[in-house]
Order: sequence, then structure tokens, then C-alpha cells
Amino acid sequence: MHAISPLAPEAFPSLAPVAGVRLAAGCTGMRYQGRDDLLLAELAPGTTIGGVFTQSRTCSPPVEWCRARVRKGKARAVVINAGNANTFTGRDGRRAVAATAAAAAKLVGGKADDVFIASTGVIGVKLPVDKVTGLLPQIHGALAAEAWGKAARAIMTTDTFAKGATATATIGGAKVRINGIAKGSGMIAPDMATMLAFVFTDAKLPAPAVQALVRAAASRSFNCITVDGDTSTSDTLLLCATGQAPHPRIARAGDPRLADFRAKLEAVMRDLAQQIVRDGEGAQKFVTIKVTGAASAEAARRIGLAIGNSPLVKTAIAAADANWGRVVMAVGKCGEKADRDRLRISIGGVKIAAKGEQVSGYDEAPVASHMQGRDILIEVDVGVGRGAATVWTCDLTHGYIDINGSYRS
Amino acid sequence: MHAISPLAPEAFPSLAPVAGVRLAAGCTGMRYQGRDDLLLAELAPGTTIGGVFTQSRTCSPPVEWCRARVRKGKARAVVINAGNANTFTGRDGRRAVAATAAAAAKLVGGKADDVFIASTGVIGVKLPVDKVTGLLPQIHGALAAEAWGKAARAIMTTDTFAKGATATATIGGAKVRINGIAKGSGMIAPDMATMLAFVFTDAKLPAPAVQALVRAAASRSFNCITVDGDTSTSDTLLLCATGQAPHPRIARAGDPRLADFRAKLEAVMRDLAQQIVRDGEGAQKFVTIKVTGAASAEAARRIGLAIGNSPLVKTAIAAADANWGRVVMAVGKCGEKADRDRLRISIGGVKIAAKGEQVSGYDEAPVASHMQGRDILIEVDVGVGRGAATVWTCDLTHGYIDINGSYRS
Repeated sequence: MHAISPLAPEAFPSLAPVAGVRLAAGCTGMRYQGRDDLLLAELAPGTTIGGVFTQSRTCSPPVEWCRARVRKGKARAVVINAGNANTFTGRDGRRAVAATAAAAAKLVGGKADDVFIASTGVIGVKLPVDKVTGLLPQIHGALAAEAWGKAARAIMTTDTFAKGATATATIGGAKVRINGIAKGSGMIAPDMATMLAFVFTDAKLPAPAVQALVRAAASRSFNCITVDGDTSTSDTLLLCATGQAPHPRIARAGDPRLADFRAKLEAVMRDLAQQIVRDGEGAQKFVTIKVTGAASAEAARRIGLAIGNSPLVKTAIAAADANWGRVVMAVGKCGEKADRDRLRISIGGVKIAAKGEQVSGYDEAPVASHMQGRDILIEVDVGVGRGAATVWTCDLTHGYIDINGSYRS
Repeated sequence: MHAISPLAPEAFPSLAPVAGVRLAAGCTGMRYQGRDDLLLAELAPGTTIGGVFTQSRTCSPPVEWCRARVRKGKARAVVINAGNANTFTGRDGRRAVAATAAAAAKLVGGKADDVFIASTGVIGVKLPVDKVTGLLPQIHGALAAEAWGKAARAIMTTDTFAKGATATATIGGAKVRINGIAKGSGMIAPDMATMLAFVFTDAKLPAPAVQALVRAAASRSFNCITVDGDTSTSDTLLLCATGQAPHPRIARAGDPRLADFRAKLEAVMRDLAQQIVRDGEGAQKFVTIKVTGAASAEAARRIGLAIGNSPLVKTAIAAADANWGRVVMAVGKCGEKADRDRLRISIGGVKIAAKGEQVSGYDEAPVASHMQGRDILIEVDVGVGRGAATVWTCDLTHGYIDINGSYRS
């Protein structure tokens, strides 16, 4: 529908199989024609799961279903559809989730409670669940270990490119794989950044460890991005660990032997999160906002998001205007502690403001040149403490308005 | 620079003199050519004053100056310039304020501490204060009681029309006048809505009463509007009471004889606030959001602002799309208590959603027709209490992006 984002990676990465994960996708026809919109991920018996979900008070029935079941920590399948968010759909919406889970459970030979569901698309329209349950047996017959690109494409809505990331980590000398796919383009803001993301690993980890790992990595990846400050009713991030890798027994997320796994998991999730920003509706520029000197890491994150969500900052970036005064404004408005007279602002590595005013001899030329590029770096030290965070966002362009005036989400 | 907003009132209202107030404006040339950008309001001896200011942590030297002096409650002049915000300008910025106050004080025969200053325009550029102090004697010579339209025009920045409102109230049988002018178009969000507003009355009121009255009226007017969720460093609202009206002595804001005055003051301030929204950068539609059933009035206001600030809601309105699902999303994201399954949503008076789903037999045609109009009404009952509030906003259009990509605020 829309041109591929100029910020897209060159190609979808090559994702090798994850032992214990098989994928298949198909087209229900409920919204799109000629493209897949239903994904089934089958997980080996013994798979553990953790998840992070939208904080919305009007969350969807699929989110309610998953949140209630993720505590048990067991998973045998994930079913995702991209034609309809199944949100604000009342009792019928809840029945549709249960029917989908039951149908998938029957196919994979597990319990409905071990099937996780995610939906994205229009809000408030009832999901024609028969189209889902009717298609599941067919796509179950096509399950394959290599279908990562197909899977990533099946969950797209306004996305202009499919999003995947992969890494290999070492746990106690054994290699484990981490593969992730995600979708998201607008209605993107913590908590959670609006999106669906599914990360799979063959690591063998108890469910409480999976939960702790996914939550910690989300706080430095998906919860540090924003496109428009709008939070979806459907945000879902799941980490599924199939336990097929032959590494020593790990009992806790804090086990030192997980150091490499933790770093690689965070890298995969950060990569996916940044891809979502790079596909931000109408995005022409990718913006990194580094905040230091805040009262805490959380305060730094909030200040970064205030800058990243400011329509005035984002429209200035779209226009390649080195309008640092709007960064001052955004720091000021967000309610977190900041010292105007110790605030330091740099753009593209060039110091612009310090000690409550523009630095003397400031030359705007190199900053203006940086603003013309695709990758914008804004650094802010708010001068009150040692808290730091990095936030990623995109600019606000005419494309955002075109897309959101024409797409019924 | 930009076409007059299609939501503008037909004409600037006729504002009769307020006894004890004289106005004059002139052109400093610091930013604009061929239009006034400096306003002097002279106030009779004995004038009391109250004010509400931006909550920004990076507020401007003029805001700091006014906040420190408004507690004393006395005013002899207000000086406003529209070419430069004098924000993030360090010690020189503070000196510029003091020099401006001293120059105006000398002219009106009062103390510098009784002169209030407001500035709006670009952030981070030093104010050429000589252009202000040099022009003040000349415009002081032109002070007049009838210059309200000229005054309102002199404080505009990206505004496409001048904003004024007036009312006559009765206090203890005597007539008092209330005149207000305001500017604001973007960077508009509580607290305070970004803007400058100056309200003058000939009522005779002690300063603590003036302060209480202006704060209460702000909470139901300027603090209930949003254009883009961005808060200025310079928001200033002042209420000046010259004490020239021959009404009985009033000691407290709660005096029952002030009932009519309170209502008229709120009406004038609401009128000005709504005019700011009607001049929202790029605005094509004026949106009223009525929230009921919230946990408190403050919760209702926050929910209304979450809806009114949502880029997805605002772009849908711009496209005349009756996309009520995005209202569900905005209610859900804002963190205030809401019950998804008791939530009720109407647009243009047509019930759309209730009991957690779309109402049965919903016909979108009348709602689609309403969305084509200039005035949009969204009503939301969140189903948890008795708190209510009304919030006003505008749509988000290509015009907003054009204006903010080209204006260096």
C-alpha cells in the first residue's frame, strides 16, 4: 500500500531454524487479499514462555487471555492474525480467542491453555473466527522450520517491511539460537511500545527465568521506542524457550552463565524495536536520543520519550531544522527533574547549549548538515544526577497523516 | 504568512474600554517588519494582579520574573513582546527582563517590581533589549483606552487571527467589565495551555481574590485545551483588576456577590481558550470532548486530554473518519481508571459503543456525516465514577507539519 520506508534494512535477515519451533502462515481473507494474515507457531513439548503486554485499560481479549496464562509458563503454540485486532468486541471476542486456542491445541496435541493468541488490525469489529479456525488445519499441514520470512510477513499491517533479527549465544559452552520477528509501525509507544513481537530460542530455561529475562530486555528495547505516543490495546511480546539446546541446567535469570544470552537477547529485541521505529508511519529519519544526568534511569527514559514524542521536535526534524529550542521545551514539559542552567544539548555531536544559553561561537552549519541526514543523534544531559537512557524515534511527516487518515485501525 | 483558520470567529469582537487600562503597541523590528510586536498595557495605581504560569522546568526569564512578583499582587504595567521568547538566554535574558521592567516603570511612574513581562517567539536567541526599551517611550505616548484590537494583533506569532473576548458582570448591583486578549496556536498543552493571555477588569478585588479567581477559571478553560501536547516555556496568564468600578467592598473570591463575575470571567477565558484551539496550527476542525463517569474531575480532564492529544485520533478526525476504536485506545492508554466493559462512546450525539462492544444495529452514516462538519463532538463515559470534564482540541493536518517545519519557535 505504501512505499517501503527509506530507513528499512537492506534485506530481511537470514534466520536459521530454532530447534523445537515450526511455523506456517496462510490467508484468511478477513481483510487482505493475496497475502498471508494468519501465523501458527508450533512449539515443542516442554517449551517455557514469558511475556510483556500493553498497559492499556482497554486491552483486547487476546491480551487478557495471554496475561492470564503466561503465569503458568508453558506454551505449545502461538497463533497470530493481522486482519482484525479483536479488541472491544465483548463476549464474542473472548469466545473467538477461546475457539482459536482450542482449534490450535487440537492440532498440536496440547491444551488450549498452552496456546497464546495475538491479534492486530481494526478495533471494534468482530473477528470472523471461523475464518481462523477453518484455516488452521490447512496451515498446520505446512509447518516448517525455515518459514521465518513468511512468518514475519504474515503479521504485518501498515508495516512497509517485514522485521526479523537473530543471534547465537553461548550458555555454558553450548550454542543457543535466538530468533525474533515483530510488527509495528504506528500506535507505537510504551508501555509497551505498540507492537507484536515473538522471540524464540532453543535455550532450556524455567518459566520464571524466561519471564524475568524478557521483562528486563523489554525495558531497554521495546519500552524505549516511540512513534506517536499512542499505546495499542494489543501490544504483546512473547519469549518462547523450547529447551532443545544441550546446555547445563540453568535455574535463575541471574545465573552468570546467562550473561552472553542476556546480551544477545537484548540485542535481538533492540534490533526489532529499532526496526519498528525505522518503519514508523511516514518516517524519513531515524532519531536516537541519549539522555544522561537524570535523577534515575527511569527519569532519563521519560525525558527521552518526552523529546521523542513532541510533535514540535518531530516536525522540526522532518524539516531538517536544527531547532534545539524545542528540545529545551520538551525537557521542560515532561515533569522530571531537570536543571535549566546545567542542561547541555548536542546534535550530531556538536555542542549547542550549556549553562542556560547557546554556547558562545555556536556554528549551526555542521548541525544543519547533520539534520539533512537519515540518522539523527540528539544528546541531552539534564544536569541533576547519573541516570541515563537511550530512546529511539522517528520524525513526524506528511506521510503519517496520509497513512492514518486512510487506515482504519 | 498562513491563511486565516477556517474555524476563526467572523470578526474581532468590539471591546469597550476598561477603566484604568490604556494600551499601545509598536514595531521593534526584532523579527517582523510592518507589524506591531510590542505591547504596553498601563494600569491605574491600585491595580491588583493574579497569574498562572507554565509548569515547564525550563521556563523563561519573563516567567521567573512574573512568578516572583505576582505574589505581592500589585501591578502598574504589562509589557509583552512577540518577536523573541527570551528563553534559554541565561543571565542576559534576566537582565533584559529587568531592563524592560525598569524602562516601563519609569514611563508609568511606578516601581519595576510592579511591571509584568511576557515574551513569545524563538527560543534560545538573545533578546535585543535595546529595541524594546528604545521603543517603549514612543508607544507610551500613544496609550489609548480603545486599542484592544491593535493590542491583540501585536502579541500574535503563528496565530492567523487576533483573539479577544469581553463580558459585563454585575457585582453588588454595579456593572464591571472584563476584557481579555490572548495569543497561541501551537505548542499548546496544559499546564498551562501554551499561550499568553491577559485579562483586565475594573473590578476592585484584593490580590489574593484575583489570584484565586484566575486559577479557578484557568482550570476550566486554558487548562482544558490542547493542540499538540507540547508545553511552552513561556505560558503566562494574567488577570489585572484596576479597582475603578464603584461596587461594594469584596474581601474574598468566595463572596457570593462574585457569582456573576466568576461566571463571566470563566466565560471570557473559555472563549479565549477556544479561540486558541480554533487557531490551532493547521486546524480544520474544532473538537469538543466531553468526559463523564470518571473517578474525579481531574481524571476526566486527563482522559479528555489523552483523547485530544492522540495523533491517531486527531488524524482520523482530519480525515473525517468516524474511527471510534482510536478513542477506545486513547482512553485505555492514559493511565486513569476506566472500565472497558462499561465504557460508552458517542460521536455527534450518536451512541456507538457500550458494554464492551459496538452497539447492535449501529449505523455509521449519521456519524460519518457529522465527521464531515467543522465542529466535532465526542462524548465518552468511562463508567467508574461521577467525575466530568470538557476538553477542546483540533484535528492534526498537513498544515501542522508545514507550519512547524518552517517556523523556528
